[in-house]
Amino acid sequence: MPSRLRLGFLGPHATFTEQALRTMPESHDAELVPLPGAPAVLAAVRDGSVDAGCVPIENTVEGAVPPVLDGLVEDPPLVIGREARIAVRFCLMGAAGTGFREIRTVASHGHGIAQTRGWLAAHLPGAEVRVSSSTAEAAAQAARGEVDAAVAAPLAATQHGLAVLADDIADNPGAVTRFVLLTRPGPPTAPTGWDRTTLAATTTNRPGTLLGLLTELSVRGIDLTRIESRPVKDRHAEYWFHLDCSGHVAEPAMGEALAALHRRCDQLRYLGSFPRSDEPAPVAGSGSPVVPPAAATLDDYAASERWLAAIREGAGT
Amino acid sequence: MPSRLRLGFLGPHATFTEQALRTMPESHDAELVPLPGAPAVLAAVRDGSVDAGCVPIENTVEGAVPPVLDGLVEDPPLVIGREARIAVRFCLMGAAGTGFREIRTVASHGHGIAQTRGWLAAHLPGAEVRVSSSTAEAAAQAARGEVDAAVAAPLAATQHGLAVLADDIADNPGAVTRFVLLTRPGPPTAPTGWDRTTLAATTTNRPGTLLGLLTELSVRGIDLTRIESRPVKDRHAEYWFHLDCSGHVAEPAMGEALAALHRRCDQLRYLGSFPRSDEPAPVAGSGSPVVPPAAATLDDYAASERWLAAIREGAGT
Amino acid sequence: MPSRLRLGFLGPHATFTEQALRTMPESHDAELVPLPGAPAVLAAVRDGSVDAGCVPIENTVEGAVPPVLDGLVEDPPLVIGREARIAVRFCLMGAAGTGFREIRTVASHGHGIAQTRGWLAAHLPGAEVRVSSSTAEAAAQAARGEVDAAVAAPLAATQHGLAVLADDIADNPGAVTRFVLLTRPGPPTAPTGWDRTTLAATTTNRPGTLLGLLTELSVRGIDLTRIESRPVKDRHAEYWFHLDCSGHVAEPAMGEALAALHRRCDQLRYLGSFPRSDEPAPVAGSGSPVVPPAAATLDDYAASERWLAAIREGAGT
Amino acid sequence: MPSRLRLGFLGPHATFTEQALRTMPESHDAELVPLPGAPAVLAAVRDGSVDAGCVPIENTVEGAVPPVLDGLVEDPPLVIGREARIAVRFCLMGAAGTGFREIRTVASHGHGIAQTRGWLAAHLPGAEVRVSSSTAEAAAQAARGEVDAAVAAPLAATQHGLAVLADDIADNPGAVTRFVLLTRPGPPTAPTGWDRTTLAATTTNRPGTLLGLLTELSVRGIDLTRIESRPVKDRHAEYWFHLDCSGHVAEPAMGEALAALHRRCDQLRYLGSFPRSDEPAPVAGSGSPVVPPAAATLDDYAASERWLAAIREGAGT
Repeated sequence: MPSRLRLGFLGPHATFTEQALRTMPESHDAELVPLPGAPAVLAAVRDGSVDAGCVPIENTVEGAVPPVLDGLVEDPPLVIGREARIAVRFCLMGAAGTGFREIRTVASHGHGIAQTRGWLAAHLPGAEVRVSSSTAEAAAQAARGEVDAAVAAPLAATQHGLAVLADDIADNPGAVTRFVLLTRPGPPTAPTGWDRTTLAATTTNRPGTLLGLLTELSVRGIDLTRIESRPVKDRHAEYWFHLDCSGHVAEPAMGEALAALHRRCDQLRYLGSFPRSDEPAPVAGSGSPVVPPAAATLDDYAASERWLAAIREGAGT
Repeated sequence: MPSRLRLGFLGPHATFTEQALRTMPESHDAELVPLPGAPAVLAAVRDGSVDAGCVPIENTVEGAVPPVLDGLVEDPPLVIGREARIAVRFCLMGAAGTGFREIRTVASHGHGIAQTRGWLAAHLPGAEVRVSSSTAEAAAQAARGEVDAAVAAPLAATQHGLAVLADDIADNPGAVTRFVLLTRPGPPTAPTGWDRTTLAATTTNRPGTLLGLLTELSVRGIDLTRIESRPVKDRHAEYWFHLDCSGHVAEPAMGEALAALHRRCDQLRYLGSFPRSDEPAPVAGSGSPVVPPAAATLDDYAASERWLAAIREGAGT
Repeated sequence: MPSRLRLGFLGPHATFTEQALRTMPESHDAELVPLPGAPAVLAAVRDGSVDAGCVPIENTVEGAVPPVLDGLVEDPPLVIGREARIAVRFCLMGAAGTGFREIRTVASHGHGIAQTRGWLAAHLPGAEVRVSSSTAEAAAQAARGEVDAAVAAPLAATQHGLAVLADDIADNPGAVTRFVLLTRPGPPTAPTGWDRTTLAATTTNRPGTLLGLLTELSVRGIDLTRIESRPVKDRHAEYWFHLDCSGHVAEPAMGEALAALHRRCDQLRYLGSFPRSDEPAPVAGSGSPVVPPAAATLDDYAASERWLAAIREGAGT
Repeated sequence: MPSRLRLGFLGPHATFTEQALRTMPESHDAELVPLPGAPAVLAAVRDGSVDAGCVPIENTVEGAVPPVLDGLVEDPPLVIGREARIAVRFCLMGAAGTGFREIRTVASHGHGIAQTRGWLAAHLPGAEVRVSSSTAEAAAQAARGEVDAAVAAPLAATQHGLAVLADDIADNPGAVTRFVLLTRPGPPTAPTGWDRTTLAATTTNRPGTLLGLLTELSVRGIDLTRIESRPVKDRHAEYWFHLDCSGHVAEPAMGEALAALHRRCDQLRYLGSFPRSDEPAPVAGSGSPVVPPAAATLDDYAASERWLAAIREGAGT
């Protein structure tokens, strides 16, 4: 009898990460294992103590999550198998009846602090802000009386028996966080036609190398949906470029582009191909393009491969 | 009688930022004003309560400083007038004779925590980590007994009468932080031949827009030394691209590139031209280039402008 | 009292070139001077014996006219001031009543021969074909009895009292020839919004130089409407690239592109900006572009120049 | 017993083309068949009446040979199997003792006329110039007394019993003509490491399409050694681009580029991969390149293909 899947997540229970993981089909019938921090989730996937692990990777307000990007390029390799998006809603919570003036200490995860910084400065100007390993842990601290209040998800108030002292306190309402499910390398899910491929690359520090990478993608009709740079540890002025691209490793355009980047980059990490969680956006027309696109279909690729094979064997064209 | 310059910095006294500011010629004879956090420094420059302000902008281990990038694109505009680099060295400090087992709380700035995370996990696994507004403030908290220890610069131990309990505890030794001096807009310093120009741009979210921006720079021989993307507040899936480029706004190549980006971008923020603090690196040769460079000198530009003016007036060529 | 303009053309009278010249406004009230061959026309403009000269430059069937391209890059410089298009119609002409079997010699200009090669091979397989300096001269030779027939424009039959033995004998009906009016350098005509600029350039013989030239044009939204390569005399494996571009030298996009090419090329010849004689074609949409265009208007350019001037003087953005 | 190869060439005997063909290894023991003009050579290869055919394709003074370029893109397809270069030397020849003043008619092939135009104008200003189907035919005409003199190769004087009246009369001494040996499609010769691949392509008439083609080549490290444009018959303002590229169809970089062009072009004709007849030129260094090259070796390609296959099967990277 096969054992249930064990899925780690940035815990404890009641984090936004657990909420995201529960929207993924892999979580059904799986054992969900809270772990203390994103590095712990990556380590547990790597050492096999869980089958997969869920962590946040970027937020529409705060940007990328640096420890996740940095952890992804460490060894042994990991790949992303799925992504999910969750709207983020922060509340201030504490013992029922607590007045703002009584709050001298308030805890949250670094991202919770960052996204409510303006509200906290305006409403709790004198409070000491303490960083917790997660928003759920901050709520637990408030429940244990170690801090006077916490900034966390509404679910955490319910779970820890706290009162919501102020709701929806994010400085930028409507923030969305994207979460990814990491696994050890294995065959990717089949292409769906609306997929994302995530890569990380380093190049020699020479003029034009980034332009070269982007040109390899664009001539093959691959769109870049996100780019981040992170310093390479111990090598000053060198960067890992984290790239999110349209398309799937099983497709010929992406395969050709990946092989080209492999030849061009110092280091190239393939970090997975998986279905996109955002809605397809209509692409606005663009007047007169400078370099017309290689908007080739799978049939176009198949036809061009057959043509090439034929001329290599001596057929006329 | 002219009053002394007032220069704000991410305080309190004894931060790495103060150390960086003191290496800048502007600090001589100036009044140095510690301010609580990078947003406070930017606000003080904007409202005129200081003449300029110094903040960290990127670190070779931790990457960019998001609140500084995000603050730079707010209004009214600011520009960078100078940069400096400081090697970062972290110590654990506390009351003399404190043993590691006695340390239940340790404070630092978020970047100090991030850069010593491994060391803290290994040596103080049970300690609660609290975020402070600066490493110097963390040392002050330790001196006041509010926490058992702090992670801060060596100078902070001296200043607050603390003992260094462990020296050089950064997970990645050799980290360097780059700091910038911000002012309200004004004429840039004269070009030195080894300058940097900092920009931030948003573009419509269409395939190839980033490639278009980089091509505008590269055809004019301008190198991109750093690129960061930060989400545009309230507009999902749109990004501010923060670009550091070789060259100076007063030079024709950069002027032409800036005007081209102005036509091509939704929003473009010019964030200053100033002398580079890094050493010129020899550029490695590159075999057979794909697009040969526009490695034009100032004389080349002057000659081409004269030639253009002549043919517009009807001269033969 | 000003003298009438003297306009040279590839003569003698009744050539397609005279027909083209008569469509140009400069020909009204001008003295039209037939000259023996395109090199003679270019020489007469250069030495001032005529004010301007008309020659064919390309044909939709035969392609470019090499002696004209090669002559344009010689010294002293010339520029194109106007262009015109003429539909080309060839007839076989000779003494009235001449049967095809009686024709043992037939004369025409090289282009006339080239464009009726198939017809001549099919209908006059045994005839000797002689090259003349013009189609009109070929008709004159037929009128003088030096050859049995000529291939020339219908007008030449009328003028020389010849019978049309076969009409419309071009192998590709519908051929159009483009003619240009050359002058010594002088101020260009004002931009009309639908202009062409003609250039010739040499570059060092290195990989990627041509791609570099085309990128300079495309980033500035300038379309290339024609490219020809011609060998550089005495320098093997080097080429003059003859480029026809959309736009006018007085416009900022073209000015910037010309200055950039001037810095990038070994030799650059500006050969004139003048109104296009073809109809504006609707540009088909292009799906997802790779490098979005710099489809900037004159207002966009003016705005970007003002913006650049402002930030160079210290204004905020 | 296998029959000897039959090789056609632009005849009659004693042309530069025969001279070029005799330098090719295929000509040893082959039957050499003179044919009247380049179109006749192409037709004979197409209909199988010869096994291969030799024609001139470009000259360092006169440029491309339009009828050969235009004939190559007709049907059924042909490919180039070999190329050779011949230094061209023109003489004026006629009956012994003929004085320049006695020469009223002089014959040559169009290219011979073009390359001695200046000399003829200076020394035989009054002579009528007649076009022949080849320089050797011109010499035969002179021997038969049909013209007073011919411009042809020295060999033709010997063969036809004519005197050399003036030697080395080309306007540009040192001209070299490149000849190609055409066959019906078949497997290409094996790559030698210094090969050329010849292509012809049409694209939709849209801004940037040519830049797109060149970018497909350059990102794969393929150099363009020659580009010509020729009008597409019956379609105004559309062009066949004739491209000579470094590399061989059997190599992965060229294969990938050809497949990409096949997807991007309206029509693409592969016209053969064969050893280059020119000496490898040292490529000059290029300072700081804009787009660094994809100077990948065959091993690099093999490694990248293995890597891609591995990640597609689920291996980690």
